[in-house]
Amino acid sequence: MAKTVKRKPKTKRASKDAPARLWLYGRHAVAAALANPARRVRRVLATKNAADWLTAQPMRNDMDARIEDAKPDAIDRALAPGAVHQGLAAEVFDLPRARLKETCAPARAGRPVVVLDQITDPQNIGAVFRCAAAFRAGAVIVQERRTPPLAGALAKAATGAVETVPCVKVVNIARAIEALQGLGYFCAGLAGEADKDIADIPKDKPVALVLGAEGAGLRRLVAQTCDARLRIPIAPAMESLNVSAAAAVALYEIARK
Amino acid sequence: MAKTVKRKPKTKRASKDAPARLWLYGRHAVAAALANPARRVRRVLATKNAADWLTAQPMRNDMDARIEDAKPDAIDRALAPGAVHQGLAAEVFDLPRARLKETCAPARAGRPVVVLDQITDPQNIGAVFRCAAAFRAGAVIVQERRTPPLAGALAKAATGAVETVPCVKVVNIARAIEALQGLGYFCAGLAGEADKDIADIPKDKPVALVLGAEGAGLRRLVAQTCDARLRIPIAPAMESLNVSAAAAVALYEIARK
Repeated sequence: MAKTVKRKPKTKRASKDAPARLWLYGRHAVAAALANPARRVRRVLATKNAADWLTAQPMRNDMDARIEDAKPDAIDRALAPGAVHQGLAAEVFDLPRARLKETCAPARAGRPVVVLDQITDPQNIGAVFRCAAAFRAGAVIVQERRTPPLAGALAKAATGAVETVPCVKVVNIARAIEALQGLGYFCAGLAGEADKDIADIPKDKPVALVLGAEGAGLRRLVAQTCDARLRIPIAPAMESLNVSAAAAVALYEIARK
Repeated sequence: MAKTVKRKPKTKRASKDAPARLWLYGRHAVAAALANPARRVRRVLATKNAADWLTAQPMRNDMDARIEDAKPDAIDRALAPGAVHQGLAAEVFDLPRARLKETCAPARAGRPVVVLDQITDPQNIGAVFRCAAAFRAGAVIVQERRTPPLAGALAKAATGAVETVPCVKVVNIARAIEALQGLGYFCAGLAGEADKDIADIPKDKPVALVLGAEGAGLRRLVAQTCDARLRIPIAPAMESLNVSAAAAVALYEIARK
């Protein structure tokens, strides 16, 4: 039987040809973007105070965006309502795609990677990036279809970590776990109902930490594909930790091995 | 020299006579309040769906508030703009005051306590409460003057933990640390610039974990009063962890001793 050639939706083709334009805001998020040589910046809006602060930060050499003097309410108008921008916003192009095999290849394999299954809240994803950067994770892997753009409130919660931790966007999380296993990773799914404790994470292999959404947890196929399901030892009265707190604790346990 | 009798400000006296009324919202926050025998509840507003969910939760026996049927926009109007209430809100009285010496007395001294120095963000304080409950902390100690009410967005982020972890409100954080030392606690201040690692937390004493605000860190007198300043081993490129992630990691380290 001949394979049907699937036509990609137009928006996707368009985004492949020209990277999406996104807004970043907040001091750490914008300063980190300007320090990232891989980040193409279109324009920067800054209040006088924020511009003074920004010029004291390390910037990349090939800065191609001018800093435009802006009043706070002009920055408000460029962003989604309620954005706490601290007088600083940047319109940027999305980062180049990171591929799983290159990003998580054996050369970087000493580092853990974090896999997010069905986590959609921008603040939580951003907070996980921040923890991932703090504990030197090599990548954050997300499902392309379910994940909001790495911008806005997400990037602000990440305090610059979206510029330093590669994000690998995949079609299917269970298959990404299999690919990681093929590269030699031990894939540990965090699950409140697991029998084993995160202290049992093996110390002789790179670890992929797989996190599900609060409440829902890991999807069944994702959990089954993991090499082990492990729990953080918390009081039974509490259903769970916040996902970024759980990421921090598990990455700390991995780092202390 | 005769001691001057200080007159307490009127608002404080009023709040001593009649506890403040507060709004809680969100499913976990309201259900936990209704399960807490120490919590006096004035009224509960619930959508049909939320009321069905609520009646399936464990409640305290002496429930004295009726659940009022309400449309989502009626609940919106009772709360601060933008409150994500999940169809459930409760007007409650503030909890009875917890005193440091009784709350942290030797009987509970096996448990760690968490001390917050100048942390004012309601979401962060709520998230710390959630971590404190998860790792069985005996209390959260805050400065009365600087801390927002344990309600609203704070209580929602705590997902019920403000009902189970006593909150001790003190006038002076450095003196509270001295009082804890008098009760036998080892007071460990988290500080990014410290030489020692949290793995060095002593294993033979109850621990008071002292956390400062992101950026500012611990005030000098508070840091000097601690028995040790310790750091979480994170990558130098990241300035800090979010305060609740830092609390989670340090409480995990204390629990694994």
